[in-house]
Amino acid sequence: MKTSLNKRIAIFPGTFDPFTIGHMSLVERALNMLDEIVIAIGVNEAKSQYFSVDERVRMLEDLFRSNPRVKVLSYNCLTVDLARQCHAGFILRGIRSVNDFEYEKTIADVNRKISGVETLVLFTEPEHTHISSTIVRELLRYGRSVDEFLPDGLVLSR
Amino acid sequence: MKTSLNKRIAIFPGTFDPFTIGHMSLVERALNMLDEIVIAIGVNEAKSQYFSVDERVRMLEDLFRSNPRVKVLSYNCLTVDLARQCHAGFILRGIRSVNDFEYEKTIADVNRKISGVETLVLFTEPEHTHISSTIVRELLRYGRSVDEFLPDGLVLSR
Amino acid sequence: MKTSLNKRIAIFPGTFDPFTIGHMSLVERALNMLDEIVIAIGVNEAKSQYFSVDERVRMLEDLFRSNPRVKVLSYNCLTVDLARQCHAGFILRGIRSVNDFEYEKTIADVNRKISGVETLVLFTEPEHTHISSTIVRELLRYGRSVDEFLPDGLVLSR
Amino acid sequence: MKTSLNKRIAIFPGTFDPFTIGHMSLVERALNMLDEIVIAIGVNEAKSQYFSVDERVRMLEDLFRSNPRVKVLSYNCLTVDLARQCHAGFILRGIRSVNDFEYEKTIADVNRKISGVETLVLFTEPEHTHISSTIVRELLRYGRSVDEFLPDGLVLSR
Amino acid sequence: MKTSLNKRIAIFPGTFDPFTIGHMSLVERALNMLDEIVIAIGVNEAKSQYFSVDERVRMLEDLFRSNPRVKVLSYNCLTVDLARQCHAGFILRGIRSVNDFEYEKTIADVNRKISGVETLVLFTEPEHTHISSTIVRELLRYGRSVDEFLPDGLVLSR
Amino acid sequence: MKTSLNKRIAIFPGTFDPFTIGHMSLVERALNMLDEIVIAIGVNEAKSQYFSVDERVRMLEDLFRSNPRVKVLSYNCLTVDLARQCHAGFILRGIRSVNDFEYEKTIADVNRKISGVETLVLFTEPEHTHISSTIVRELLRYGRSVDEFLPDGLVLSR
Repeated sequence: MKTSLNKRIAIFPGTFDPFTIGHMSLVERALNMLDEIVIAIGVNEAKSQYFSVDERVRMLEDLFRSNPRVKVLSYNCLTVDLARQCHAGFILRGIRSVNDFEYEKTIADVNRKISGVETLVLFTEPEHTHISSTIVRELLRYGRSVDEFLPDGLVLSR
Repeated sequence: MKTSLNKRIAIFPGTFDPFTIGHMSLVERALNMLDEIVIAIGVNEAKSQYFSVDERVRMLEDLFRSNPRVKVLSYNCLTVDLARQCHAGFILRGIRSVNDFEYEKTIADVNRKISGVETLVLFTEPEHTHISSTIVRELLRYGRSVDEFLPDGLVLSR
Repeated sequence: MKTSLNKRIAIFPGTFDPFTIGHMSLVERALNMLDEIVIAIGVNEAKSQYFSVDERVRMLEDLFRSNPRVKVLSYNCLTVDLARQCHAGFILRGIRSVNDFEYEKTIADVNRKISGVETLVLFTEPEHTHISSTIVRELLRYGRSVDEFLPDGLVLSR
Repeated sequence: MKTSLNKRIAIFPGTFDPFTIGHMSLVERALNMLDEIVIAIGVNEAKSQYFSVDERVRMLEDLFRSNPRVKVLSYNCLTVDLARQCHAGFILRGIRSVNDFEYEKTIADVNRKISGVETLVLFTEPEHTHISSTIVRELLRYGRSVDEFLPDGLVLSR
Repeated sequence: MKTSLNKRIAIFPGTFDPFTIGHMSLVERALNMLDEIVIAIGVNEAKSQYFSVDERVRMLEDLFRSNPRVKVLSYNCLTVDLARQCHAGFILRGIRSVNDFEYEKTIADVNRKISGVETLVLFTEPEHTHISSTIVRELLRYGRSVDEFLPDGLVLSR
Repeated sequence: MKTSLNKRIAIFPGTFDPFTIGHMSLVERALNMLDEIVIAIGVNEAKSQYFSVDERVRMLEDLFRSNPRVKVLSYNCLTVDLARQCHAGFILRGIRSVNDFEYEKTIADVNRKISGVETLVLFTEPEHTHISSTIVRELLRYGRSVDEFLPDGLVLSR
């Protein structure tokens, strides 16, 4: 019998302001290799935000309501400490570009050294490499439609 | 009960001429998230070799003899076709550098498009990023000891 | 007869705080393949500035006064919306480095997707790759001469 | 009246073994800013080939038969010398990746220095960044269909 | 006889907030090729700080008290102007990553152009490439031990 | 008194087929921080050559005849073994690009691990980053003048 101890759980940390079609694709692909994914919205007071953390949590809870293998929460601690609290052995991250690669490798190396938590990387699909929350926010600021950059079923609400 | 159908199997394709401490570390770390790893030695007639494919298969079989979750074979077909034959849903790859990143992303994108097989990436640990089979072969050619670059228990034999 | 509809017009968006010899070289080289270039100074209130937008517009108008194929304006909207207003089919950008490349590719991909406007890229000439407005401002702050980094005829004035 | 002297002509040099959907997209996008494109197949005896140069010329002539603004030829000289023979002021190149960027920038810088011929760069569209002639040849060798990587209307024939 | 004029002196500029084991390793390695190193803490009012400049100077003076070939100071001018004041012909920098490389190359090229001061680069050792002051500060903020990232003998004190 | 033991000697290994203006600039700049430079032409039978090793040695001996601080030799062993034979504590290398950076870092890390020999890196000056022996050979093959890419006083002779 498989106990919760050998469940493969990963946290997927990020700002998700907002969650994009690129993030959605990563979650769906990662569910093929993991039992459970915890989407973990980092609270970063130094970073200006478009949607509040509460709004982001609510939008994602709505989006994944029917999927018991995806949980959503916000956090304000070291990512590896959150991983331990969630009994997660892995951190999930996508990489789109060389710049992402170098940033993620550094963080992953530190996390492995200080806690043993491993980072599991998926390559962003080619058709999503140009999509980022930053660009979605920029389009929203100028009143542009962003539907093509958001997952089906995500309702932006403030 | 878990059947073989939901076993998480990955192939780990490469030349492994020879298998290094960097490869070993990847296998050990990946076994935390996978049920089985198939080390798959690609036969590439265009590429000159130091150890023959048979020698490489035999060395790796010896190395992993006591670990039933690691299998070793050689292959001469598309990597995704081998994955299907092995009932493997994943391809395992490590990335050390920006150059690796770009190469692996391209291959992974093609493999996903033509077969749906997903590539699972781990970052090479910092202390192994400078190690490669190419450098081990270069040192061997000049009669240098390469012990520090090989996993414990690997016996180089021709 | 060539009508304005098939004129090849590009906007050259940037902060230009200040305009450097690297920017000048791009404009001159791009005029060989374009009929008209609109230098478009983006207004970005979040970014601290050295020269005001009005000062930058005035300096560039002076610099290009004798060239009817170069226009200068400031803007505060999406770059692709400005392109449409200017009947410009292209956005002109220079790339100096890998970092520039990744940034520009992402923006260009988004702009093409949402509007069809194409980005035309020229490589910065080797002798200008280390020059940036950021470095010119840094030198100005410490009272250093910056003449060698500015185009002939540009008069810095506040 | 526009004379041939002010026609904007670019050569698009490459191996094109074979021509892919990524190359096709570049040609179509570049025709929006150029009057004529000369697809120039470089003869490189040191490089092993899948389709002969003659086969490649014939396939591309068939593909572009109805488009008088695209010409096809093979060449065995410096690219800038071919450009001069074709009265082309520009070399057209696409860049997919950081690796492409560095390679292309070096060549473009040399070409500009020795001849004044400018290189015009377009970013490969995200959905084509993983496509290359190398990968198409690899799939062909193993008997895989490559239709999704080829432009509509291109018939591979040997 | 060697006079002070031909002493090989380098300044090692940085923020060092705080000084890490990676910085220490660079200083030790560089002392093999230099006569004297001046660790120069840049005062940057725009950048938020964890330890004050005075605290950083004091911690480093304590650390290098027994080594007469290492000096410590803070500065608030152009790095090349400091170099001249210190009779230093070189600026010492370590590079960990591609991102570092591009940043450092640009600065070094500018410094060479405006002053003739040369930048001497050492590669960060593989086991230190993931270590940065930024990450140390992040761990300190969450109350984590950072001993493994600091040089022996450095006492963090505020 | 300075003895030969504390002389700062570096070897500058490469193929130098042929030696370019970029190589020359590196040697001149490095002589400001080193006492002696040994230009070491690696014999690589697998690599096709334009000038023979003997021709390259002779051309460089002629070029540096009047400079007693520069020596020229060819070698066919591990670079770090040559360094020891030459009593050189350093290997000198220039980096032009991200691609160079990653390649050089890997080699330097291995050399430091197996021998303690340190690699001293200088950035190639911006106006030389596009120059390489490969490009010079390509131009020579097509009968182009390469004078602008060669150091004053270097006479190409076969």
